[in-house]
Amino acid sequence: VNPLPEGILPPLVTPFRADEPDHDALRFNVERLNSTRLAGYVVLGSNGEGVYLDEDEAVRVVDRVVETSAADKFIVVGTGRESTRRTLSLSRRVIASGARALLVAPPSYYRDSMTDVVLEEHFRRLADSVNVPVILYNVPKFVPVALSARLVLSLARHPNIRGIKDTSGDLLYLGTILAGRPSDFRVYVGSASLLLAGLSLGADGGIHALANVAPDECVELFDLGRDPRNVGEGNVGEARLLQYRLLPVNQSVTALHGVPGLKAAMDLRGYRGGEPRRPLLPLAAPAIEDIRKVLVSAKLIGA
Amino acid sequence: VNPLPEGILPPLVTPFRADEPDHDALRFNVERLNSTRLAGYVVLGSNGEGVYLDEDEAVRVVDRVVETSAADKFIVVGTGRESTRRTLSLSRRVIASGARALLVAPPSYYRDSMTDVVLEEHFRRLADSVNVPVILYNVPKFVPVALSARLVLSLARHPNIRGIKDTSGDLLYLGTILAGRPSDFRVYVGSASLLLAGLSLGADGGIHALANVAPDECVELFDLGRDPRNVGEGNVGEARLLQYRLLPVNQSVTALHGVPGLKAAMDLRGYRGGEPRRPLLPLAAPAIEDIRKVLVSAKLIGA
Amino acid sequence: VNPLPEGILPPLVTPFRADEPDHDALRFNVERLNSTRLAGYVVLGSNGEGVYLDEDEAVRVVDRVVETSAADKFIVVGTGRESTRRTLSLSRRVIASGARALLVAPPSYYRDSMTDVVLEEHFRRLADSVNVPVILYNVPKFVPVALSARLVLSLARHPNIRGIKDTSGDLLYLGTILAGRPSDFRVYVGSASLLLAGLSLGADGGIHALANVAPDECVELFDLGRDPRNVGEGNVGEARLLQYRLLPVNQSVTALHGVPGLKAAMDLRGYRGGEPRRPLLPLAAPAIEDIRKVLVSAKLIGA
Amino acid sequence: VNPLPEGILPPLVTPFRADEPDHDALRFNVERLNSTRLAGYVVLGSNGEGVYLDEDEAVRVVDRVVETSAADKFIVVGTGRESTRRTLSLSRRVIASGARALLVAPPSYYRDSMTDVVLEEHFRRLADSVNVPVILYNVPKFVPVALSARLVLSLARHPNIRGIKDTSGDLLYLGTILAGRPSDFRVYVGSASLLLAGLSLGADGGIHALANVAPDECVELFDLGRDPRNVGEGNVGEARLLQYRLLPVNQSVTALHGVPGLKAAMDLRGYRGGEPRRPLLPLAAPAIEDIRKVLVSAKLIGA
Repeated sequence: VNPLPEGILPPLVTPFRADEPDHDALRFNVERLNSTRLAGYVVLGSNGEGVYLDEDEAVRVVDRVVETSAADKFIVVGTGRESTRRTLSLSRRVIASGARALLVAPPSYYRDSMTDVVLEEHFRRLADSVNVPVILYNVPKFVPVALSARLVLSLARHPNIRGIKDTSGDLLYLGTILAGRPSDFRVYVGSASLLLAGLSLGADGGIHALANVAPDECVELFDLGRDPRNVGEGNVGEARLLQYRLLPVNQSVTALHGVPGLKAAMDLRGYRGGEPRRPLLPLAAPAIEDIRKVLVSAKLIGA
Repeated sequence: VNPLPEGILPPLVTPFRADEPDHDALRFNVERLNSTRLAGYVVLGSNGEGVYLDEDEAVRVVDRVVETSAADKFIVVGTGRESTRRTLSLSRRVIASGARALLVAPPSYYRDSMTDVVLEEHFRRLADSVNVPVILYNVPKFVPVALSARLVLSLARHPNIRGIKDTSGDLLYLGTILAGRPSDFRVYVGSASLLLAGLSLGADGGIHALANVAPDECVELFDLGRDPRNVGEGNVGEARLLQYRLLPVNQSVTALHGVPGLKAAMDLRGYRGGEPRRPLLPLAAPAIEDIRKVLVSAKLIGA
Repeated sequence: VNPLPEGILPPLVTPFRADEPDHDALRFNVERLNSTRLAGYVVLGSNGEGVYLDEDEAVRVVDRVVETSAADKFIVVGTGRESTRRTLSLSRRVIASGARALLVAPPSYYRDSMTDVVLEEHFRRLADSVNVPVILYNVPKFVPVALSARLVLSLARHPNIRGIKDTSGDLLYLGTILAGRPSDFRVYVGSASLLLAGLSLGADGGIHALANVAPDECVELFDLGRDPRNVGEGNVGEARLLQYRLLPVNQSVTALHGVPGLKAAMDLRGYRGGEPRRPLLPLAAPAIEDIRKVLVSAKLIGA
Repeated sequence: VNPLPEGILPPLVTPFRADEPDHDALRFNVERLNSTRLAGYVVLGSNGEGVYLDEDEAVRVVDRVVETSAADKFIVVGTGRESTRRTLSLSRRVIASGARALLVAPPSYYRDSMTDVVLEEHFRRLADSVNVPVILYNVPKFVPVALSARLVLSLARHPNIRGIKDTSGDLLYLGTILAGRPSDFRVYVGSASLLLAGLSLGADGGIHALANVAPDECVELFDLGRDPRNVGEGNVGEARLLQYRLLPVNQSVTALHGVPGLKAAMDLRGYRGGEPRRPLLPLAAPAIEDIRKVLVSAKLIGA
């Protein structure tokens, strides 16, 4: 299977207009991001409102990103659904469209029934059926079934399960996986706020919303935190100061205001975030003003 | 809109065979339940694995129930989906198929964004678009967004939002809604374990899994607990003793073993529960044996 | 051991002035409550700020209540402490002062170590050492270790462990204990909001904050909900209407505003709630005004 | 006030024998730890079973540690109690006994009343009354009231509130405090599992249970992770490998088995952990064997 890249990948937002996917805005964003040093794109992840698209819509969005993306960007698509059959069906279609890896959150509706046995069977069945790497997606904030470290390390022995994106914010969990993983199992930090801490423990990169808004800064933080040759007394300070600078932006844009906040921040930085799909509502003006102030204060936009 | 019934409605299970809906088994169950005093059926609720069916499959299941159901049974269909548009689209199709009311859980993926404002807009948009009553579905066990009592009482003023099924288990919440509801807004207790307590506060009925396994006993408990003319010193005792008797069955069948447990219990009582759909796995033999013992001990099956 | 009473017992507040127990105010309250049909008093429970008093102070407060209380009031004292030895030491002293039963919450600091084995040993050691009945106190809102139903039913076989006060709000839990208890094991509902529901399942009484503020109404609700001879179509309605009327008062006074709210409500009804002890701060004026409005609206005070 | 040290401080366990503090065992441990490069000792913290000692007992334990401790060890004492008055009274006594700083967890019994306003007043009242630095103690695992980052950064401006120990495990919280703290406000990581990640963000040291069992390894990890001059490509690896090696030990000794596990691990490494106080029970033999295996596997003891 394709080896997974190191580095930073943004979970692309899906812009909507009048409750329909806005493919022009999507293309605009991808074209502009093509010139950054981002390692690739994640399509239809949590920030891509993947759960709001039906299968045909999802495939069309993937098609747009594949045809617009620069050749050096690695394309991952989110395909976790509640039933095993629908997860497989969507996965096959997006692979046919050009997805080079899948990002797969666990089913979660019947939380208490999602034992390690059930989840292991579900993920193995998927991984047995596809020819691209599967990235496990641990995202208890949105999907209320956490993947135990034991389950992750067991699945990491499957030849097609080659990485994890963890947005739990639990560095003990991340460290446990890093300490026990096979060397080619990639670990992506799921929040820009924890990138430096995750890299200190050995993480390979980050998949996080802020990379839609501040791609260059996220890549710079990755470089500073990752490469030991860059680390001297000053550089360590440099990495920390950049991490400190991004903390309040990330808190405001994603933790506080969710997907509508991320889209508003993209608008403010010259991307085309567009509207969210219903039931999500666009951010109200006072919240947009809050985000503007945070971006100004982090020197991501002018006053 | 159709007035909602008082009484007990089971959330019908959807039997599967080889991962496909088993319409014969479904018909078998409905035909057998037709002879009970159940007030109606809920199709594609949580226990119906509604989240595992795509829209076409869902409509076919509804068609089967509608054509099999006795004329006096009131048919409710679960249609809550993540996006407003898919909730509307599925709702319209099942109404066309004969659904007389909708049971609608809130969207929940972007939990923190599901404010009362967002949810109120979502439910009103749905209720404005349909001509059958909407029953709100508060089910934090499966859908991690709870409907606040304030939101429920606000929505209860919409002419098409005419009831709630509450499975929170929080009698303070139930009491607050009962104390503040318009008189024609129906309140259904979502767990057989809390039926008597809910009735004491004025609830109108129950929609709960156990009614698939023990429909007559659930209807009897409703009658005993509901009608004050039946309540004397002894009868109060009778209602309580029946409630006590059903408690461990309900705990074992649904709380402990989930949908696979409910299906196994139906098999043991002569219904055709069938298999769950993947990722759910059928119950293992020792768990089935546990359930058998609980059913024997509650005198629901012979030893 | 003393048989535990049926009926309503308020957990008395401990009034403070200048951060010291105000024995005059305490006596005033007890004298006034002596003329009600309350079954007794609970001293130094959660609402009595028992955790803020050292052992000598606690004993002096018990002494004041014992010497002021009418002869027909049953006196229970809260004595749960973190260590087994301090729980025993305080229990012995208050029994010597006249306590007729103990209300004992579990230790909770080392939550994860408080297994059923550890708790069973702790409670048995206490019960073996005293000659008055122990009432288990399940209060997860304040003490983050819940007593499992299995543990409670096991401890209920000890001759000196004769009851439970449950403030979990979980009627399934309450029902499970009622269904499995020995007939002389008393079950007290810990919240006025759930009194009617608890009585419908067979509870013996209530120990709840609101009985400090509205003792007559709580006793009336107990009578209406308890005695099947009073229950006809109208009376059932009467019980429910009274329960509905008390719901918002209880929510405002205790759930929303805590002990300072309870004390302010007592002041408004002519008792002497006094100040809380630090770190608790007296309620601010706008919150007191909120409570006043709620009491007016429930016809507990004039406008 | 005394400047707070950088580095590692163990929260000393309090050994018990026959439910009484075992001062000989305590002295034995301190004498042996005196020869390490630990920066000091924390007495009567969570791992010291401080909540199980009355005030006189607590002072005697502090006296023993002060008289036994090497001159270069900085002595911190845990004095957080539920009431402000008892927190002050214990603090004054241990300062008189030689405590050079206080570690103070917030009151938590009335969780919902512990607003930032109440907590700020409580901590300021304490800090105004003492002449040694106060270290805030955020430990939601044991004390279910978390100190918000906003409250911590506000309190950090008080001249006597000079640090925090954070055991939340939330690196976003830790990072937010580090990004906003005054330069002389010390931040201690509360878990050995997160030491390296915390140091990457700028933390000043660690106060954690594992330093009782593996003091040299904890100090080495601090040195490797802290000093940028030591960090080259290899050294980064060295720090990570040591962190990975300590992870399972820390999980087993403290997270899984609590204070009894920590004491058992100390016994296995030649210290005198002793018994816990009741209601805590000594670890059973199979659990001790588990810990032995973990220590062997981490090369902390021979096979």
